[in-house]
Amino acid sequence: MAASASIWKTIYLGSFVHSQTLTELEICRQGAIGVDENGVIDFVEKNISNISELKSKDSSWQDAKTVKIPGNGFFFPGFIDTHTHAPQHPNTGLFGKTTLLDWLQTYTFPMESSFKDLDRADRIYQNFVARTLSHGTTTCAYYATIHVPATNLLANICLKRGQRALVGRVCMNSDLSPEYYRDESVESSVRDSKTSIDYIRSIDPAGDIVKPIITPRFAPSCTAECLTAIGQLAAQEDTFIQTHISENKNEVALVQELFPTSKSYTDVYDTHSLLTPKTILAHAVHLSPEERRTILERGSKISHCPASNTAITSGCSPIRTLINEGHTIGLGTDISGGFHPSILDNVRQAIWVSRHLSIQIQSDAAKLSTEEALYLATRGGAAVVGLEDKVGGFEVGKEFDAQMIVLGEVGDEGGIEAGPVDVFGWENGQEMVEKWVYAGDDRNTVAVWVRGRLVHATRKFKGAE
Amino acid sequence: MAASASIWKTIYLGSFVHSQTLTELEICRQGAIGVDENGVIDFVEKNISNISELKSKDSSWQDAKTVKIPGNGFFFPGFIDTHTHAPQHPNTGLFGKTTLLDWLQTYTFPMESSFKDLDRADRIYQNFVARTLSHGTTTCAYYATIHVPATNLLANICLKRGQRALVGRVCMNSDLSPEYYRDESVESSVRDSKTSIDYIRSIDPAGDIVKPIITPRFAPSCTAECLTAIGQLAAQEDTFIQTHISENKNEVALVQELFPTSKSYTDVYDTHSLLTPKTILAHAVHLSPEERRTILERGSKISHCPASNTAITSGCSPIRTLINEGHTIGLGTDISGGFHPSILDNVRQAIWVSRHLSIQIQSDAAKLSTEEALYLATRGGAAVVGLEDKVGGFEVGKEFDAQMIVLGEVGDEGGIEAGPVDVFGWENGQEMVEKWVYAGDDRNTVAVWVRGRLVHATRKFKGAE
Repeated sequence: MAASASIWKTIYLGSFVHSQTLTELEICRQGAIGVDENGVIDFVEKNISNISELKSKDSSWQDAKTVKIPGNGFFFPGFIDTHTHAPQHPNTGLFGKTTLLDWLQTYTFPMESSFKDLDRADRIYQNFVARTLSHGTTTCAYYATIHVPATNLLANICLKRGQRALVGRVCMNSDLSPEYYRDESVESSVRDSKTSIDYIRSIDPAGDIVKPIITPRFAPSCTAECLTAIGQLAAQEDTFIQTHISENKNEVALVQELFPTSKSYTDVYDTHSLLTPKTILAHAVHLSPEERRTILERGSKISHCPASNTAITSGCSPIRTLINEGHTIGLGTDISGGFHPSILDNVRQAIWVSRHLSIQIQSDAAKLSTEEALYLATRGGAAVVGLEDKVGGFEVGKEFDAQMIVLGEVGDEGGIEAGPVDVFGWENGQEMVEKWVYAGDDRNTVAVWVRGRLVHATRKFKGAE
Repeated sequence: MAASASIWKTIYLGSFVHSQTLTELEICRQGAIGVDENGVIDFVEKNISNISELKSKDSSWQDAKTVKIPGNGFFFPGFIDTHTHAPQHPNTGLFGKTTLLDWLQTYTFPMESSFKDLDRADRIYQNFVARTLSHGTTTCAYYATIHVPATNLLANICLKRGQRALVGRVCMNSDLSPEYYRDESVESSVRDSKTSIDYIRSIDPAGDIVKPIITPRFAPSCTAECLTAIGQLAAQEDTFIQTHISENKNEVALVQELFPTSKSYTDVYDTHSLLTPKTILAHAVHLSPEERRTILERGSKISHCPASNTAITSGCSPIRTLINEGHTIGLGTDISGGFHPSILDNVRQAIWVSRHLSIQIQSDAAKLSTEEALYLATRGGAAVVGLEDKVGGFEVGKEFDAQMIVLGEVGDEGGIEAGPVDVFGWENGQEMVEKWVYAGDDRNTVAVWVRGRLVHATRKFKGAE
């Protein structure tokens, strides 16, 4: 299996940038990151003038390969997408004027139900995993569909491509979903989920790359009995759990109607043992202070999906409040409620949503800085998916999940077509990062590594020497 | 001069899409647009099965060249950018946490003042005009700097590249601007403006491609005496006028302080003869109903700059209200308050801003549809710059300003890297347009024409046959 085979020791040379804290980026212009045979960071040097000197210090690095970054580029941690729906990829951009509940019926369920056709699933999933990798996403929490074969196929594709993934078969047995697309019974819902969990664990027993995640779609999609059974399965199998919470006001009202004895949306999950430290809750737009307190007490995590919340007019998640309260938060693209598979685009969108909140409350306090949004996209996301000790930044002992960012130099070969960012040569490190964040796209993500393995490269990448 | 030399008659064959009304797109899958030697549309056919039949109907088209669009593409009118600052291009993405007034001092004035160096101006302007063309912008209202030589250079570049442009030397004589970057006196402000107007008219006497535009930066940048003199110059020269209005609340308060006898921000311009049917007012975020009435009565136009208003937290312009009142509105990128030189990106941003307004007022009424935003980007913008009879849609008698949009087919050569949009083959015309609007970028703008002249093409464009 490619993911565990040992690799050539490699020194990544040049600028690197990562979050030091929530509010600070470290920008190191003359760095060197040594990655060992297992893809683990062995050393991080911050003031390197000479690669030979570095190699001569330690003879075991004498034969190491080198990946050099040009002056207008930097290494950056891979992005973590904490919430997305792989089968909805072909619907990206299609939502018309719908909001959540009618959008599900019009666009989502018909598309997802078609994944009983495994050839079709293969074509779409291959394309989507390639697409997310090209945007620098090294870890992704995927919702699949209700179909076991297609869900397992998605896990196979992630494993083969080397993208870390949580892959979840969607549980949904209530009659909110159309008859043509739902679990037949509580029993089949549990059985199919278990089958997929077992399969995913069989292809990657250590869970180095792919892991299963129990995925009750959202409360209205499941009967109380089903939620109970799913909660038990999660405890029994000790898996991650992902679901949606409090995305849209009509949805919140619907949950209250469907679960009249529950105190709140959060309470529905809590009373069915679905709020654990391994639970990822997407959206969290309209939670009450009490609900947020419960989530915090249970140690559950939050996936902020700003592009989606804007596109389908769900609302503005109060990220500043959630941060101040101490929640663990990452970003999610939420394809296809969200309209872009790129976490970089969602970094921007998180900033815009926070600025709209700031306009609403007439205070700068709500504004996310560039640094904060990048933190959510990397270290924040890593903590959401339980990988905070393994990825999210460049420290000794972490695994090397990274993207090589190269910006366009004005007058370069390739010109305008080569990429969207224009660097004139006088920009400092901070400005390079900001130009990338506000104007960059996948053309600037020239190469991507997971655990030191190259998982994506554009024509511009020259390879290791 | 390239812009007036006659060209080969050409038939543009395949799908075309343009706004029929504010709320309706016409999507024609088997079209043919005939463009004559002057770049004027001679015929528009909507159900063509056979090019030979078409040519044989009229012998004068027998030798016409043909540009065919592939099945996953369509011709679309060129975009009109009704407000942008060319010299601020290198600052794109750099605004930190500033808002309008401190952003000007920190980022904008230092950059603009450097345009006294003509080599530097040449490098930046060449790059920016190439950049806006690559995003399908066929007409652009540019602010330059206070420098006559650099302003004239920008007009030269636009004329040479064939991009329609209004080019304005910026007037600013008040002490809001730093001593190192402002007009020395009212006299020099008028004289320099006149010099640049004369120059631009000398290089394109008919104004087919480039025209001058009088550009008082915004009320706080000019003394009352200067505004009077500039208003007189505009009347005497019968030119377009562009300025900013009511972008940010602190700015509105500052105007009230600086012009204590004026009833409002709008009144400042009105009483200095600067509100004419040829006036373009950028932003219009915080106008009172009375101000909006005055603008409507004067026939002045509005440039909506959604990305900029979000990025520097100016507010949400009430576009639905402005539309309902009958204002003429286009979109502006407002580089570098805006962070993207693409009008397509601002189509999306206009939609997001309208959705945030809709979230604020808890009503769907504020929402702009895809169709409406595309209308503002084309026909709306054309009316703002006084070209509604010449460009903005595909009708007989209009000039052919167009972009060739090609979306990526999954499995195509080039793959993921070829572009950001994935077409699976089952999409209908409406869905193709939506995929482009919500996920597309300059990679999908394969070729661009102004008056039938090719002004930009990517490697994918095969040329006319």
